[in-house]
Amino acid sequence: MTQRVYNFSAGPAVLPESVLATAQRELMALPGAGASILEISHRSKTFREIIEAAEANLRTLLAIGDEYAVLFLQGGSRLQFSMIPMNLLTPERPSADYLLAGSWGKHAFKEAGKFGPIQIAWDGADSSYSRLPNTADLQLNSKAAYFHYTSNETIQGIQFATEPEVGDVPLVCDASSDFLHRPTPIDRYGLLYACAQKNAGPAGVTIVIVRKDLLDRSREDLPIYLNYKVQADAGSLMNTAPTFAIYIVRLVTEWLLHDIGGLENMYRQNQEKAQLLYDAIDNSGDFYQGHARLQDRSLMNVAFRLPADDLTGQFLAQAGDRGLTSLAGHRSVGGIRASIYNAMPQAGVEALRDFMLEFKESNG
Amino acid sequence: MTQRVYNFSAGPAVLPESVLATAQRELMALPGAGASILEISHRSKTFREIIEAAEANLRTLLAIGDEYAVLFLQGGSRLQFSMIPMNLLTPERPSADYLLAGSWGKHAFKEAGKFGPIQIAWDGADSSYSRLPNTADLQLNSKAAYFHYTSNETIQGIQFATEPEVGDVPLVCDASSDFLHRPTPIDRYGLLYACAQKNAGPAGVTIVIVRKDLLDRSREDLPIYLNYKVQADAGSLMNTAPTFAIYIVRLVTEWLLHDIGGLENMYRQNQEKAQLLYDAIDNSGDFYQGHARLQDRSLMNVAFRLPADDLTGQFLAQAGDRGLTSLAGHRSVGGIRASIYNAMPQAGVEALRDFMLEFKESNG
Repeated sequence: MTQRVYNFSAGPAVLPESVLATAQRELMALPGAGASILEISHRSKTFREIIEAAEANLRTLLAIGDEYAVLFLQGGSRLQFSMIPMNLLTPERPSADYLLAGSWGKHAFKEAGKFGPIQIAWDGADSSYSRLPNTADLQLNSKAAYFHYTSNETIQGIQFATEPEVGDVPLVCDASSDFLHRPTPIDRYGLLYACAQKNAGPAGVTIVIVRKDLLDRSREDLPIYLNYKVQADAGSLMNTAPTFAIYIVRLVTEWLLHDIGGLENMYRQNQEKAQLLYDAIDNSGDFYQGHARLQDRSLMNVAFRLPADDLTGQFLAQAGDRGLTSLAGHRSVGGIRASIYNAMPQAGVEALRDFMLEFKESNG
Repeated sequence: MTQRVYNFSAGPAVLPESVLATAQRELMALPGAGASILEISHRSKTFREIIEAAEANLRTLLAIGDEYAVLFLQGGSRLQFSMIPMNLLTPERPSADYLLAGSWGKHAFKEAGKFGPIQIAWDGADSSYSRLPNTADLQLNSKAAYFHYTSNETIQGIQFATEPEVGDVPLVCDASSDFLHRPTPIDRYGLLYACAQKNAGPAGVTIVIVRKDLLDRSREDLPIYLNYKVQADAGSLMNTAPTFAIYIVRLVTEWLLHDIGGLENMYRQNQEKAQLLYDAIDNSGDFYQGHARLQDRSLMNVAFRLPADDLTGQFLAQAGDRGLTSLAGHRSVGGIRASIYNAMPQAGVEALRDFMLEFKESNG
């Protein structure tokens, strides 16, 4: 078998080895089915049990109430950027508020503008998206159809530790890059969505948790695949669901429940892992410079710079030689980005921390 | 390992065992990558090589010219039912012609009606969708933005052996259930699309082959994921592609090229396989009754009925006992449906044929 590296990719990202091992073992034939998960009908009893288990696991992990629907959709968060305004804006409430904390919030805002007069509740551009707003900073419109924010910005490495306070307007969250990283009070949200390929599974499925009363806003003339009400009424099986990706979500959520022991434990591990890297940055005498303001730093994506660009190249090359891969910062910001999602083991983070200390020793 | 059955599912459907074996072997780590295909970035060199190989294989198999773009999208054919009118209807040509040869053509037509005054070029309702039209039967509108048809109707088991003649109007085809089953003259088409989960891969990716001049019709105000031009300009990597599903498409297309030896060979095998079952039907003295008119019968989905509904139940139960599974007809039509896509081995079809002969002997 090819040796596995420590993969710090921002997404698609590392998965638990035990999940991969199960998927590998079952790939020729699911136990009792006589066929691969890649081959069975989305309407078969076997697959229905899989999608129901995936949903049940998510409901347990996040304590999702019956007043919410859980959808498994395709198209990634990009399609949600369109679906949210298409479904949630109404003639009575044609506008929505968007908080721009980084690159993904800006993408969501730009797309929403096609569907209504969207307003900016706050924009972190002045700080190069290195800090988050206080509640008093937000420009709230009480007539907004919803308030949209991105809970973790992967490119800037900035993350909300708690939900923003937005009054009675439904809170909508792109949680793509920190979904399931901690217990989350779903009842604070009107809609929360996440593509799976960071913390929940592989690319190809996006999870949408939506309060059922909001489904009444979906107009019948929407493109059928983009209609939340149609998707909810059909239990995400209006058409052929991405069966394999949902199967992996089931395995990952089982790992969270049974191997990790729930999201409180996951959160503690994530805090410990991030602290290892932030300590290395903070104790480096400014050799490593973090991007985000201290209290807004992400537990998922640790973004930092080195004193010179040629050092960045050396850092990446030497890290790669040690099997520490996919550490280049996003092309729009450069530097280093270590994505340390749920499935990145502590040993991987320690190996990176050790390398950071040595590299600074040799080059500082 | 769990024993594998002969899986006659209409989709997701059987895949070549050698493809499953490769995917299984590589699931923990792609050779040289140190990480699973489920974990690597869609922008990594490794994945770019995979998507480029998948596209190159398709271009070779179908002799697709440079004047066509090949897209790998999510959302299934259902999303194409919306994307096609959203992208291809124009203010100058606000209507399109739809040929309704079965259930899927009707679904496509119904969805398109949300976006313009769509016209029916022909409707097989009078024959319960058991036959296809002649060219003279088609009501063609020379001002149509495009002409849409479904090349194979999985539920009715009816299939076009050649392209309908529609003049200069761009021909658009839902080839979901017979894609890659024979050489196809792509230059006859403006756009041809297929969800992968019958002949090309697993659920979760849809292949769209579109003539590049038609991309100019895509308006900038479309939902970004639904814009063919945006997707083509980005090489299907505007956002995170369904990486695993595309990897399987690469493996399936390699199997077609190297193990099967191209689509001429595949077509011959498909004709031979279908003939085994149609002979069993035709020689059964009306014990088995095929749905489709003889010259319109599908090579992919063999749909037939038994003399009585209780016999259908017995047939399904006894077939299941022999490892011949997923043979129930679609719930809308009942009876038996044997889907014998590219990857169904001749041995599986022979086993079904043998069972059909025995069952008739015992019950006829």
